[in-house]
Amino acid sequence: MEFGFEVLKTDPSGARLGRLTTPHGVIDTPAFMPVGTAATVKGLTQHTLEELGVQILLGNTYHLYLRPGHELIGRLGGLHRFMSWPRAILTDSGGFQVFSLAKIRKVSDDGVLFRSHLDGSEHLLTPEKSMEIQQALGSDIAMVLDECIEFPADRERTRAASVRTTAWARRCRDYVRGNAGGTNPGQALFGIVQGGGFADLRRESARQLVELDFPGYAVGGLAVGEPHPLTCELTSAATAELPAERPRYLMGVGLPEQIVDYVRCGIDMMDCVLPTRNARNGCLFTSQGRVNIKSVRYAEDQRPVDEQCSCAVCQRYTRAYLRHLFLANEILGAVLNTHHNLHFYLDIMGKIRKSIAFGELAGYSSELQARLEAGQS
Amino acid sequence: MEFGFEVLKTDPSGARLGRLTTPHGVIDTPAFMPVGTAATVKGLTQHTLEELGVQILLGNTYHLYLRPGHELIGRLGGLHRFMSWPRAILTDSGGFQVFSLAKIRKVSDDGVLFRSHLDGSEHLLTPEKSMEIQQALGSDIAMVLDECIEFPADRERTRAASVRTTAWARRCRDYVRGNAGGTNPGQALFGIVQGGGFADLRRESARQLVELDFPGYAVGGLAVGEPHPLTCELTSAATAELPAERPRYLMGVGLPEQIVDYVRCGIDMMDCVLPTRNARNGCLFTSQGRVNIKSVRYAEDQRPVDEQCSCAVCQRYTRAYLRHLFLANEILGAVLNTHHNLHFYLDIMGKIRKSIAFGELAGYSSELQARLEAGQS
Repeated sequence: MEFGFEVLKTDPSGARLGRLTTPHGVIDTPAFMPVGTAATVKGLTQHTLEELGVQILLGNTYHLYLRPGHELIGRLGGLHRFMSWPRAILTDSGGFQVFSLAKIRKVSDDGVLFRSHLDGSEHLLTPEKSMEIQQALGSDIAMVLDECIEFPADRERTRAASVRTTAWARRCRDYVRGNAGGTNPGQALFGIVQGGGFADLRRESARQLVELDFPGYAVGGLAVGEPHPLTCELTSAATAELPAERPRYLMGVGLPEQIVDYVRCGIDMMDCVLPTRNARNGCLFTSQGRVNIKSVRYAEDQRPVDEQCSCAVCQRYTRAYLRHLFLANEILGAVLNTHHNLHFYLDIMGKIRKSIAFGELAGYSSELQARLEAGQS
Repeated sequence: MEFGFEVLKTDPSGARLGRLTTPHGVIDTPAFMPVGTAATVKGLTQHTLEELGVQILLGNTYHLYLRPGHELIGRLGGLHRFMSWPRAILTDSGGFQVFSLAKIRKVSDDGVLFRSHLDGSEHLLTPEKSMEIQQALGSDIAMVLDECIEFPADRERTRAASVRTTAWARRCRDYVRGNAGGTNPGQALFGIVQGGGFADLRRESARQLVELDFPGYAVGGLAVGEPHPLTCELTSAATAELPAERPRYLMGVGLPEQIVDYVRCGIDMMDCVLPTRNARNGCLFTSQGRVNIKSVRYAEDQRPVDEQCSCAVCQRYTRAYLRHLFLANEILGAVLNTHHNLHFYLDIMGKIRKSIAFGELAGYSSELQARLEAGQS
């Protein structure tokens, strides 16, 4: 299958029901992409991910480049084959992790010189290098290298990073046009809108990227500490400039109660470590708000994590048992918590899609947010 | 179902094909019991254990007593319900872990005074206390408290521990006769033969226990460093004294290539942490010997762990991927390695049972041992 995107229905709010086609299958959008950093969604087998209905997951280029190395994965036929995952994969550019995990040595127009957080070795990540790595990985969607800056940053610095991001996006695009290949010839490349906390810079960045003509666009550098309404405002500023017929991906979001808002900003794809990382920390998402499973209040609680949840964990195990597993630091605790949280996120996405299809998104949105917020009190 | 045991066929070697009936289902013997120390077989869901065909697993009384506590598990309906495991469970007495993990304060005829390895709190484990705990846990098979000593130990010390073990076994038996109850009224109590490295003391211990009339008998304190032929000799010394119509459990064994030997000594049940603990350390058992998955030789090896294995892991994942998961310290590495190793052990047990049924145990035994030993070289 070739890469493609189709908007099936648009809600008055701007939310879109869509269908993304990739060389490794179709993805119903709006979609949530679980994070599979090191070629695994921590704690879950690929079989379980399939059972949960995951249609696309995210791999981290920075981690895979450092270990086991993109060349090794390339020689073994690409990431899909390496990890035995037949469905779609999106890889990030490596940029975000370089800026957040590695020791930066120097950022220049050329690229980013950094030291590995694993062994201190020195590496240069350029736009071209990021493309070379992602081509070897053979993801279905690759991302351009962008410059990620701290938040808040002043207008001057933000604009400079945005200009550099556009220049790097052009180099990425030109590299893949000139170097078809890798382990997935059908790989698509998405541009990334930057522009920090400034709506006009967001619009400017979006317009520049659209001129470069990518098959899809991401919005990066948001949900990094700014208030949620501002995130939505800046997202909408970007999506308003993006072509309606191309998919839009908001990177690194979000909380369950915020997801619908992003969808209403016209976002089709999201990824976030929250369901998986929080699971390992004992924080479980439920239809009634969050459950901190280590709390003594659950010591003898024979109810499932979420009485309204249909996942395999809630069908079989009690809060008392999950609390015990967490306190005893048992692997199964991480496994079951992750399973539940991911099911919860995917279930919300399914309900959002259904609500858009039936023209009931506004109602679903209010109901969900009221329920989740009541549960927090 | 009431507790019962039936020998279906006896091999000329002494190996027995049998059927153990418990309140939580039937167990085909010879059986291998995976170790589920803290109410979980580390890394596997109960669903996976069911799929693997596990009919009985072992819970550790010492760990469960300390965390989450037998009283809590008792209030929640027992261990089966707590961990959502509908099939059979055997619990040990707690004695072995007290002697190996805790700080012993004092051993007397009364019991063992020890400090918890978790928080240093002081506890007294007596035969009666062990019964009280195991009744609250509600396992299908409980074990008497025995005195475990170092190996090698001299004859005098060994005999004294054996005498004390018999005295404690009587107290355990009398306690459960006088205190029916707990969360599993059908619970059976097994005696434990001790006697260290002395065949005559093993025989003496076995005879004393048989007089106490237990529904099943274990052989304890073996495979603790002595040569394998001696383990077999001492096991046979014990089983020769045990009634043919009662099940026999050799505690804490063994290596794949040794299992058949124990079966030929007339053993019906075994348990061991090897498949699960080794899995977490990257040591995989295969039909061709052991695979140390972290070895660089597997870095680009696209074969399954064991080309002759039918487990879900060998059907889907390569050695290269499992090596990557292990080196990246990923949860999924422990999960998949454990799945494979446990399947390997259970597969051997199935083949042993089939070989006994068809009168081909001698042939299977030579073939298996030759193959595994060749693989080590």
